[in-house]
Amino acid sequence: MAFRSLSARISHVLATPQTGHFRTSIVPALDVDLRGIPGDRHYGFTRPAGARERWYAAGMEMRSGRQLSVVSVEELKQIATRLEIERVEPGWIGANVVVAGVPQLTLLPWGARLVCGDGAVLVNEGDNAPCRFAGAEIARHFPDRPGLDRLFPKAAIDLRGIVASVERAGTIAPGPLTVKLPQQKPWPGGTLL
Amino acid sequence: MAFRSLSARISHVLATPQTGHFRTSIVPALDVDLRGIPGDRHYGFTRPAGARERWYAAGMEMRSGRQLSVVSVEELKQIATRLEIERVEPGWIGANVVVAGVPQLTLLPWGARLVCGDGAVLVNEGDNAPCRFAGAEIARHFPDRPGLDRLFPKAAIDLRGIVASVERAGTIAPGPLTVKLPQQKPWPGGTLL
Repeated sequence: MAFRSLSARISHVLATPQTGHFRTSIVPALDVDLRGIPGDRHYGFTRPAGARERWYAAGMEMRSGRQLSVVSVEELKQIATRLEIERVEPGWIGANVVVAGVPQLTLLPWGARLVCGDGAVLVNEGDNAPCRFAGAEIARHFPDRPGLDRLFPKAAIDLRGIVASVERAGTIAPGPLTVKLPQQKPWPGGTLL
Repeated sequence: MAFRSLSARISHVLATPQTGHFRTSIVPALDVDLRGIPGDRHYGFTRPAGARERWYAAGMEMRSGRQLSVVSVEELKQIATRLEIERVEPGWIGANVVVAGVPQLTLLPWGARLVCGDGAVLVNEGDNAPCRFAGAEIARHFPDRPGLDRLFPKAAIDLRGIVASVERAGTIAPGPLTVKLPQQKPWPGGTLL
């Protein structure tokens, strides 16, 4: 596996207050282990299957690739522009890590590594599908914009960031970020489908 | 996350005898849980970092994406042709699942799901880097071909199959296989590096 590297930075990190809700708030740093963020609702190697996995029985224990949610400053701005609102705060949609300087974070190849300073290393487990619950949280901040919740999933396509799991335990804090990209080899079998 | 599907089949499944060696032998079926194959040397959500991860301290506990090794009948034939030998048996190189009918298995996009009949579901965690230890096992069967071990890593590039982790527990046995492919969106940031 050959990797190339890209230098970027971590702008903020956020954690879930102990409320059970998915909203997150800015904290100075996250100390993660291989199960994710201790105390977080997404902590664990496994999770129950939910609405995103309609092909599995609801509640079935499955491998989790959703330990953390990562978004980018630039993409949140694009979502806000599309929705014609002033801003989308990362905490409203439950983000844990906000990065800056990663071009098109959401399209980053699966398996890309996010090396957080000399601390934790995250693995990109794919783009985070925008959902209406996150849309409802955004809408709550713009009460004069009825229907905003339903606009979010479409406006956020390819901009909502990625989900990640922890490959190396450690600290995640604002500062330098190195993105390690696996070689992108297009799979030619795709033309057969 | 949109997926497309491809129908293929599982030709054989193999497990490690209780020897500690990486060689595998054909078994009727594998019953896997979310940690992999119970009793196998690669069983677990985590593993110690090794020679493949020179950027981590040797032995550091890290996330494991190597629960199972998957190879294809077609690619093993191509490796044998390149090495000018009669065959490469999947057990020699420690494979657990042998598939047939998946075009260029090794280049399959990361995150592709392998749905094994109505049993286990595996997640593609990327191509398996060919190593000289596997080469040495092949060479052992062709004593009249000195140096074959060192030819293997190059001959097997893009043909050595993938590593996978278990997303849904269940059985893996010879029979139908459905490959679910995540949308392939080229990451345009690659041109910036």
